Amino acid sequence: MSDAIKIALLGCGVVGTQVVRLLDEQADDLAARVGAPLELAGIAVRRPARHHDVPAHLLTTDAAELVARDDVDVVVAVIGGIEPVRTLLLSALSSGKSVVSANKALLAEDGATLHDAAARAGVDLYYEAAVAGAIPLVRPLRESLAGDRITRVMGIVNGTTNFILSRMDATGAGFDEALAEATALGYAEADPSADVDGFDAAAKAAILAGLAFHTRVTLSDVHREGIGSVTAADMASAKAMDCTIKLLAICERRGLDDGRESVSVRVHPAMLPRSHPLAGVGDAFNAVFVEAEAAGSLMFYGRGAGGAPTASAVLGDVVAVARNRVSSSRGAGESAYAELPLQPMGETRTRYHIALDVADEPGVLAAVAGAVAELGVSIQTVRQEGRGDAATLVVVTHAARDADLAATVHRLVEMPFVGRAASVMRVEGMATE
Amino acid sequence: MSDAIKIALLGCGVVGTQVVRLLDEQADDLAARVGAPLELAGIAVRRPARHHDVPAHLLTTDAAELVARDDVDVVVAVIGGIEPVRTLLLSALSSGKSVVSANKALLAEDGATLHDAAARAGVDLYYEAAVAGAIPLVRPLRESLAGDRITRVMGIVNGTTNFILSRMDATGAGFDEALAEATALGYAEADPSADVDGFDAAAKAAILAGLAFHTRVTLSDVHREGIGSVTAADMASAKAMDCTIKLLAICERRGLDDGRESVSVRVHPAMLPRSHPLAGVGDAFNAVFVEAEAAGSLMFYGRGAGGAPTASAVLGDVVAVARNRVSSSRGAGESAYAELPLQPMGETRTRYHIALDVADEPGVLAAVAGAVAELGVSIQTVRQEGRGDAATLVVVTHAARDADLAATVHRLVEMPFVGRAASVMRVEGMATE
Repeated sequence: MSDAIKIALLGCGVVGTQVVRLLDEQADDLAARVGAPLELAGIAVRRPARHHDVPAHLLTTDAAELVARDDVDVVVAVIGGIEPVRTLLLSALSSGKSVVSANKALLAEDGATLHDAAARAGVDLYYEAAVAGAIPLVRPLRESLAGDRITRVMGIVNGTTNFILSRMDATGAGFDEALAEATALGYAEADPSADVDGFDAAAKAAILAGLAFHTRVTLSDVHREGIGSVTAADMASAKAMDCTIKLLAICERRGLDDGRESVSVRVHPAMLPRSHPLAGVGDAFNAVFVEAEAAGSLMFYGRGAGGAPTASAVLGDVVAVARNRVSSSRGAGESAYAELPLQPMGETRTRYHIALDVADEPGVLAAVAGAVAELGVSIQTVRQEGRGDAATLVVVTHAARDADLAATVHRLVEMPFVGRAASVMRVEGMATE
Repeated sequence: MSDAIKIALLGCGVVGTQVVRLLDEQADDLAARVGAPLELAGIAVRRPARHHDVPAHLLTTDAAELVARDDVDVVVAVIGGIEPVRTLLLSALSSGKSVVSANKALLAEDGATLHDAAARAGVDLYYEAAVAGAIPLVRPLRESLAGDRITRVMGIVNGTTNFILSRMDATGAGFDEALAEATALGYAEADPSADVDGFDAAAKAAILAGLAFHTRVTLSDVHREGIGSVTAADMASAKAMDCTIKLLAICERRGLDDGRESVSVRVHPAMLPRSHPLAGVGDAFNAVFVEAEAAGSLMFYGRGAGGAPTASAVLGDVVAVARNRVSSSRGAGESAYAELPLQPMGETRTRYHIALDVADEPGVLAAVAGAVAELGVSIQTVRQEGRGDAATLVVVTHAARDADLAATVHRLVEMPFVGRAASVMRVEGMATE
């Protein structure tokens, strides 16, 4: 058995507390797996008096001093935000310490700087917990599929929005009502913007796309639409098509006309057929589909958040980097050689579901279909439902440039016999293109 | 870029051909990911004349000579059986070459010898392709969950039997008829015993249990029942309970009365509620549930067999071991420190579904229920269905020792008013214990 591997923990909230518990309860097992005991060197927190459930002598308010300590081997970050975590982790890496981070925002905003620092120092930077909690995704993408060509990653990676959309689906509630329920039950934070506006999912999408396509992707590269504009009418429209609505993170490899490739990374709500495996993913769970040329379709499913599940992912990484230190090894580093260009959302091929309030007159369906065709968009189905003297016309398109589809909606609502667009929503996961 | 990493390929069947194709088609990407080109040094086959689709100058019939070559860095085994693969891989490992193996039988029968040889030589032994084809399972169990305590692994890991059972479920066919269909469609081999009798699934269960519980498990430790005795009546009984029947590989950590722990590893057909995620897993797909203390429930789903999916897993491992050679690192080795005892099947707690042909007389239900209780087995539900002068009595038990449940069936069929057991089947995946 080698000397103890000493760990500095930055943060001790819901996840950190579980990390401390598991390090203690599983000490013997972890030592056997690593080949050395794992020992907490210190825990940096803002208000030590608030942390009764961890050993008091380990607590410190001086995170910089803790990270700089010579006896620390591994720095574990379970706090959010960009600063001071970035400075702390860069300092850790540059002094030869391995880093395990659950902080998705920092990785999505400035992972490149961290990766460069890790590469320069020849140490590990692991972050399985930053994407979809306990679900192993980083390692499968970075290692298991390293011999394959990933074409698509599509997943539900935010539990709060999934809860809200699931409630809207189950009860017919509007967004505000479902959000209020989520807040009351503790599924949504007092300021729900990071979840509801898609920032959290977009950060994860950036990390997943980077891993899948060997290309650096940052949060600002991700096209992001939240669920705040999803209405009860949208959900009703989805139901009429035997679909539900999910907030999807989608990372796609796309061929360009000149034979090169590009990457599309986006987060937006979309209709999904109920028969699609992602449609059945409930509240607290996350699930991610991965398509690769040789492997075919893979799905990963599990708890995407919460203290213990996230701590499980953190500890898996801690064991890995500790093992590497014991054997003087280093795990797989960043792979960003491909440098594929990012495709603007307008150029991305998507499909639209468009429900229009129209006058119930003869020829309306034909006129709408004609207008859509004129714009070069191909229709998969069109359906008219009368209701008194008005009617609803539902158009589902084939795949087209997103900008052309948006322009189509714009043109349609300006037609004389069209009232308004009752529901406009992208469609994913249907068999036909 | 470092010097080329040279690969010796043992076997060039369905999987090997795809490995050769992917090494060629993705050469640039693989080189960028590894930091060195990957180069085929040779391909050992029995009849070179049969392999028109791979470069002829690489083919050799002398596998031992190929493995012994000084310029070979990595040996990839995509042939089955125990010998000569074992001797070849041991020779490769002891001469400092890394090994990637898709051979599940060898790993399940004598993985210990291979692991010991790899540890002695300080080289990598990777085998993601040996379990469930393209689905990343070995790496998640060995690394992602290394900081957690896995309590259960349950999965569908054999496509042939899953096809047969799916057909029996869909059409009401008997086993022989469904097997004939599977054979005609190429889903079953001419001698289907390895699949149908559960040997293939049992080998995978042994490997999964070893990884999950840090304990060496061999094929002979696995309780194995095939699907040859599953009848159309069993499937009808399952349907009446809103269940289907799947061949399950189950690896469980169990507490013993004295506070120690043991491991139960088994493969047998079982009824599974249709609401269970594994119930919907179709023909060609595999899926594995993993339960861990902190992570909760995880599911992994994908193609469990076939040339390209298996080759994807092989190449992921090749990239990993090649990267390690470039950086003079070594990945996680075997972890078998726990040495948990294996629990005999009779001691394992299971639940039974028992359908009995009984005389349609008053008091029969009470007499059967009484007999079951006398044997210390607790009943969850009992249901009687009359059909003319006879009836079917269906008992679903709570969890009990498997031996006690088997004894209960034995006792019941000897009762005077009981004709025969129309269907006896274990039940898994129900909410109550």
